[in-house]
Amino acid sequence: MVLELHAPKGPTLHDLWNSTGSGLLTYLLSFVYVGIYWNNHHHLFQVVSQVDGLVLWANLHLLFWLSLYPFTTSWMDDQHLARVPTIAYGVNLIGAAIAYSILILAIRRLPSSSHMDEVFGSDWKGKTSIVLYALGIGLTFVEPWLGVVPYVAVALIWLVPDRRVERWLERRDEVSTG
Amino acid sequence: MVLELHAPKGPTLHDLWNSTGSGLLTYLLSFVYVGIYWNNHHHLFQVVSQVDGLVLWANLHLLFWLSLYPFTTSWMDDQHLARVPTIAYGVNLIGAAIAYSILILAIRRLPSSSHMDEVFGSDWKGKTSIVLYALGIGLTFVEPWLGVVPYVAVALIWLVPDRRVERWLERRDEVSTG
Amino acid sequence: MVLELHAPKGPTLHDLWNSTGSGLLTYLLSFVYVGIYWNNHHHLFQVVSQVDGLVLWANLHLLFWLSLYPFTTSWMDDQHLARVPTIAYGVNLIGAAIAYSILILAIRRLPSSSHMDEVFGSDWKGKTSIVLYALGIGLTFVEPWLGVVPYVAVALIWLVPDRRVERWLERRDEVSTG
Amino acid sequence: MVLELHAPKGPTLHDLWNSTGSGLLTYLLSFVYVGIYWNNHHHLFQVVSQVDGLVLWANLHLLFWLSLYPFTTSWMDDQHLARVPTIAYGVNLIGAAIAYSILILAIRRLPSSSHMDEVFGSDWKGKTSIVLYALGIGLTFVEPWLGVVPYVAVALIWLVPDRRVERWLERRDEVSTG
Repeated sequence: MVLELHAPKGPTLHDLWNSTGSGLLTYLLSFVYVGIYWNNHHHLFQVVSQVDGLVLWANLHLLFWLSLYPFTTSWMDDQHLARVPTIAYGVNLIGAAIAYSILILAIRRLPSSSHMDEVFGSDWKGKTSIVLYALGIGLTFVEPWLGVVPYVAVALIWLVPDRRVERWLERRDEVSTG
Repeated sequence: MVLELHAPKGPTLHDLWNSTGSGLLTYLLSFVYVGIYWNNHHHLFQVVSQVDGLVLWANLHLLFWLSLYPFTTSWMDDQHLARVPTIAYGVNLIGAAIAYSILILAIRRLPSSSHMDEVFGSDWKGKTSIVLYALGIGLTFVEPWLGVVPYVAVALIWLVPDRRVERWLERRDEVSTG
Repeated sequence: MVLELHAPKGPTLHDLWNSTGSGLLTYLLSFVYVGIYWNNHHHLFQVVSQVDGLVLWANLHLLFWLSLYPFTTSWMDDQHLARVPTIAYGVNLIGAAIAYSILILAIRRLPSSSHMDEVFGSDWKGKTSIVLYALGIGLTFVEPWLGVVPYVAVALIWLVPDRRVERWLERRDEVSTG
Repeated sequence: MVLELHAPKGPTLHDLWNSTGSGLLTYLLSFVYVGIYWNNHHHLFQVVSQVDGLVLWANLHLLFWLSLYPFTTSWMDDQHLARVPTIAYGVNLIGAAIAYSILILAIRRLPSSSHMDEVFGSDWKGKTSIVLYALGIGLTFVEPWLGVVPYVAVALIWLVPDRRVERWLERRDEVSTG
């Protein structure tokens, strides 16, 4: 990820605040989001033993949305959390969330993933995220910066890594050992 | 890939359109192209068991053309699909297509690839692409933006991943198992 | 790492000095720092046989601080080692050092790392670094550029790679062979 | 590698020439250089079975010089091959060449590389390169752009990949098979 932060024009804390302002915070938010995907992605491909063309495309589709983060982040930031850019950021978040769901679907349809139902489960986090993103977009019409609140909430939900995959790996190791 | 998109100068949808305009579309087009190469490249090196100096150079040659995409994409985009930049983009696409064909030739000449004729077959897609790119360059002389139509058509042809490699892998697995 | 250096505006050595000035030196310093982490990181993951969600997050946390280096480096450099930017650089260094310590703690708590106490030992280098960084920040209040002296000293301490990990690997190999 | 090319300001071939001018050529030259290192690097680490701290540092040292290429390339290019920037580019090339030699020395001193003398041989290419780079720097005092001629000559010498490593690998395979 190449999220850009531009050095302040002057040497004081005031300059730092003026030039980056909310920038450090939105940078942190987008960094955490990319980290969440990187983290879950890493877990996901630990249990996947087969990859085909559709999975590669679904993966690329996810990458496309993630690659837009620097663009929507800096727009939202430059415009001091104005309505349209904050909506654009939310659309970007929803796009990535849907792309991740599609990637999981593409993996689950493979014969070699038939025994992995418990790994993915009901994906309540994925579904909740999309609802919260939509809520965030809606809240921008009340007060633009309010939309960021649900965006942050989703990041917090995901900060707890998905224990399901780890549990499944542990159980598999037990079975193969015991 | 580092395709650059610059944040709009203002907070409205109008600003988004003005600053990126066709930018989001050409970004998407170039992203899909790079994705196609990445995808086929991944498939290709799944069946390659030996690499020598010439293959590495052919690979680097392909990388050179792909590395020019951000440059030609942003020129074509900044100039609102004017003739010369649109031709330059087409030349870039042809260069990458020829480089990919050379890479396949470099791999096929290796002794360890002798049994892989069916994997590569007649490469009709590769040949069709070059013809369509040339057609696109020709069409810019009728109407500059018309050239983009065949460029998009090639992307659509390739979006269906190459089933030949997958079939070959499946057959090999059957042979080694059964 | 993407540390940016901008080409001088004129063709003389004077232009080089004017446009990059201390830039080449701070670039070198940050490059060495990132190299130190990359180096120790490489060593660390050679002895780690298990990774879980917390380790991934600790790793990402370290990456976050490292990703801020280009930002704080260029600010300190643009402002000719003024006080506040030099402090900001020191805070960045401390942040990364603490993140690295947390990463080691996250790894040590795993059952599979129980036999690795000797690898990590007392981590005197890590603790000394944090003290020296704090000293550097303090020295900026005497004379801003003085703060850089301890920063450079820490880099020199770490330039000698950690022999402990290598020794441990050698001993393990001896045990498994002999 | 992130070598930057900026899109021309206008839609004509004239604009392309004005804005990039020698830029496309120096971009190609630097791309080839990085490709040469990448290529030989790949070959080198195919025969290396052991890595220690010193090798990692030597590798990082090489990376440092390679990371300066975009900086010296764009300076030389912006200043239309003026003397000082062309010398700076030559110094960069020499720095990378020496760093590569140090990397080879660091690898050869490892016990596991004792049987690899024939792989590295006399390294006449490495020594010739440094002489030619120095010649290029000298020639800039006759006529600035003349210095680029030996730089290009070195690239051509290296474009033929090092057969020694391939031969050694083939022989090893024969021994272990036959």
